Amino acid sequence: MLRAAARALTVSSLNPKVLALADRHLGGLVARRAQSMQEELQTNPAAYPFNEIIYCNHSNPQSQGQQPNKFFREVLALCDYPHLLDRSETSFMFSSDAIARAREILGLIPGKTTGGYSHCQGIEGLRDAIATGIASRDGLPSYSDDIFLTDGAAAPVHMMMHLLIRGNKDGILCPIPSHSLYTDSMILRGATLVPYYLEESRGWRVNISNLKKQLDCARSKGIAVRGLVVVNPGNPTGQVLVEENQCEIVELCKNEGLVLLADEVYQENIYTDQKKFNSFKKVARSIGYGEGDISLVSFHSVSNGYYGECGRRGGYMELTGFSSEVRKEVYKVASLSSCSNISGQILMSLVMNPPKVGDESYPSYRAERDSILTSLSCCAEAMVSTFSSLKGMTCSKAEGGISVFPSVCLPPRAIEAAVAMNTEPDVFYALRLLESTGIVVVPGSVFGQVPGTWHFRCTIVPHEEKTQLIISRFKAFHEAFMEEFHS
Amino acid sequence: MLRAAARALTVSSLNPKVLALADRHLGGLVARRAQSMQEELQTNPAAYPFNEIIYCNHSNPQSQGQQPNKFFREVLALCDYPHLLDRSETSFMFSSDAIARAREILGLIPGKTTGGYSHCQGIEGLRDAIATGIASRDGLPSYSDDIFLTDGAAAPVHMMMHLLIRGNKDGILCPIPSHSLYTDSMILRGATLVPYYLEESRGWRVNISNLKKQLDCARSKGIAVRGLVVVNPGNPTGQVLVEENQCEIVELCKNEGLVLLADEVYQENIYTDQKKFNSFKKVARSIGYGEGDISLVSFHSVSNGYYGECGRRGGYMELTGFSSEVRKEVYKVASLSSCSNISGQILMSLVMNPPKVGDESYPSYRAERDSILTSLSCCAEAMVSTFSSLKGMTCSKAEGGISVFPSVCLPPRAIEAAVAMNTEPDVFYALRLLESTGIVVVPGSVFGQVPGTWHFRCTIVPHEEKTQLIISRFKAFHEAFMEEFHS
Repeated sequence: MLRAAARALTVSSLNPKVLALADRHLGGLVARRAQSMQEELQTNPAAYPFNEIIYCNHSNPQSQGQQPNKFFREVLALCDYPHLLDRSETSFMFSSDAIARAREILGLIPGKTTGGYSHCQGIEGLRDAIATGIASRDGLPSYSDDIFLTDGAAAPVHMMMHLLIRGNKDGILCPIPSHSLYTDSMILRGATLVPYYLEESRGWRVNISNLKKQLDCARSKGIAVRGLVVVNPGNPTGQVLVEENQCEIVELCKNEGLVLLADEVYQENIYTDQKKFNSFKKVARSIGYGEGDISLVSFHSVSNGYYGECGRRGGYMELTGFSSEVRKEVYKVASLSSCSNISGQILMSLVMNPPKVGDESYPSYRAERDSILTSLSCCAEAMVSTFSSLKGMTCSKAEGGISVFPSVCLPPRAIEAAVAMNTEPDVFYALRLLESTGIVVVPGSVFGQVPGTWHFRCTIVPHEEKTQLIISRFKAFHEAFMEEFHS
Repeated sequence: MLRAAARALTVSSLNPKVLALADRHLGGLVARRAQSMQEELQTNPAAYPFNEIIYCNHSNPQSQGQQPNKFFREVLALCDYPHLLDRSETSFMFSSDAIARAREILGLIPGKTTGGYSHCQGIEGLRDAIATGIASRDGLPSYSDDIFLTDGAAAPVHMMMHLLIRGNKDGILCPIPSHSLYTDSMILRGATLVPYYLEESRGWRVNISNLKKQLDCARSKGIAVRGLVVVNPGNPTGQVLVEENQCEIVELCKNEGLVLLADEVYQENIYTDQKKFNSFKKVARSIGYGEGDISLVSFHSVSNGYYGECGRRGGYMELTGFSSEVRKEVYKVASLSSCSNISGQILMSLVMNPPKVGDESYPSYRAERDSILTSLSCCAEAMVSTFSSLKGMTCSKAEGGISVFPSVCLPPRAIEAAVAMNTEPDVFYALRLLESTGIVVVPGSVFGQVPGTWHFRCTIVPHEEKTQLIISRFKAFHEAFMEEFHS
């Protein structure tokens, strides 16, 4: 028999929607360069004028030394190996409320083990705990039937896109700049992205008249706009929306029949006393809109907050204003992956129902939380103040979220140099920063930005020493860069 | 302002591909009836001539009382709460090899915690361990770069479908009967299902000439057939393919340029000394086909095997014969959900690299494994022997997998009664079984079957007492049923 040398599969025969996903999923130019520099530094520590790469390009705190919350991990360990609950030593090694919580959680699970498939929406008792947490946050009822426990926040976003998108004549309003989850999920399903720019000069507020204009424009082109994505607190932009702006968004969705997809994963990351997080559900109810008025999905996950449990892949979405018929279809999509991981489900319930005053773990829980949030807050303030003070740079307040997103007015000669290298100017700036300082940031073009403006996303880090190092290196680099390309 | 009472979202406006998913995702008629009977029994234990519902409709052993493997759970608990590794009590409470393994695993993870995002393919050191396990299973090299760690086995199946399916002119060859994962994934992406019937009279073997006929027929209709799904050991059919049959499948895929999607999740569930599990990769290499000849994906998960860790959502796919360009596109799709849960990744590495002779945990690991596999094997044999002995019933050997799939020759009067109730005859049989005995099985129509034949899937359970109970009740029911509908 002849042996054909040809492989079965070529790139050109793959789903073009997958091919259309940006190459940044392969790391992007800046991240790839950082990776190779890191390897170089390992074999030759003197290769660069710095001894480490500082990753401000993503938020993955535990991989960078942040310790997980003790109470959360005690409960997870006890639930994973319940045999510990029968040992007398356990009472000396674990806090009493962690032991009580683990017993309570195991009591909620058929078979009392984390090894069984759960209900597709997640373990009912854990959803009850989460609904209680949401109710206490909002001062409004929340129901376990409305909650779908998920592997992080990406999974439920993909589920909702699956449900809403029929083809390329369906569109979703999506903020620019925004992180890639929403745009990628749309690309993969062939949806039309209907972008709306956040208003940088007003602290990345949502400009409703611009939003309405984009909606009308898409509709005039025959696009059925199914929903609107809003990210609050913002990513990468770090704003916390004011209630008045949230009301406008809710009213628009209600009047235009749009599903409001509210990314609320940074709800615990607030760095200013002037603002507080309001869920879109609370805002909708406050202006009198009930279940029958607006379809609203709120996404949350265990990857953010002060605890940063990214690798545990816990998350939920709360659906309100969905008819039971539509909800059945959501359930079908959720059931395609059986259920989310039980350990992540448990962790999500702990996040929404942490130790209370009087519990043995409360003081340590509170201390860990406050210490990290205070560090993040200090870092955010220091970064904003530094970036705002640099020549040609402006930086909106980091009221929440996990990053700042300064704008750099690049000198024409820098832009020319970038063009000559066949690079986007913001990528050029980020690469020069990396080569000079070891600091990795993400160029604004990855998130989208008003044409002709240039930004970068820099992650807020919970280490004061590192913050100081980043700031001083950044300052020196930027001044030298502006000097070099001064015309 | 006027308050429109209309909701934003109606079922008719949803993605028709979601609507096309069968309602069995909402539980199916039999499962829903079982659920309501269970609730009835709780309030009125005398409601039926039995006191419990026996779930033979799915495999979820830990939710039915099976204990998780001790070594696996020790390692997970230590990795969740590494603080335990610093306590002197730990050496009395955990086995020494679990402690050593946890230290080793934490050493592989940046930040030494399970709370960080990993590489999109999974933690490299864990992939190394899995590749070592695969290499030792097959006696062939395996590479960590070929492994993608995933949340169970459903996630990578959906990934591959995303990659391969461009639209409704693309098709995938899929066995009938088969569980719904593959067909649902195709429906959701609008692919054309190209079915091939397994040959029941020859122990559910793959009939290659029939397969080739289906392929040619699909092609003659303009369908681009992209791949072939094969499930070995079979689900729901329980066969273990002979090597000769596997060779034929590999050759067909190679000659026809089909990606071979090999569901090998039941590789450890083998109940006969006459057969052993051969991976498709091993078979392909044994007939001289290398990387350049055939694109092959092997799926595995922690949900099956004797350990049945369904709720932990661990899994992997091994890709061989994929060019680096195609693999980049797989990587893009994988990156859309950041990474799979780290706890599931760890568990998958333990499954593929369990305690060895000489390790402290080896005797207990071995005893747990053998005890469960022996019970499953006894149950499989008892079920097959009973079902084969019943009037009008035939049942192929359960060589592997987790279920038997007997054929019932229903009397014409039973079929008439079903038709009169507007029910599929196999659903009618399963409902009558449930009402009489409390035993829940899945009607064959859920998996697909040759028209005019009727089957049910009955899960093999690892409890000897329960097996006896199931068998005696089933026998009494079936005899009465056949008597009742005797013409």
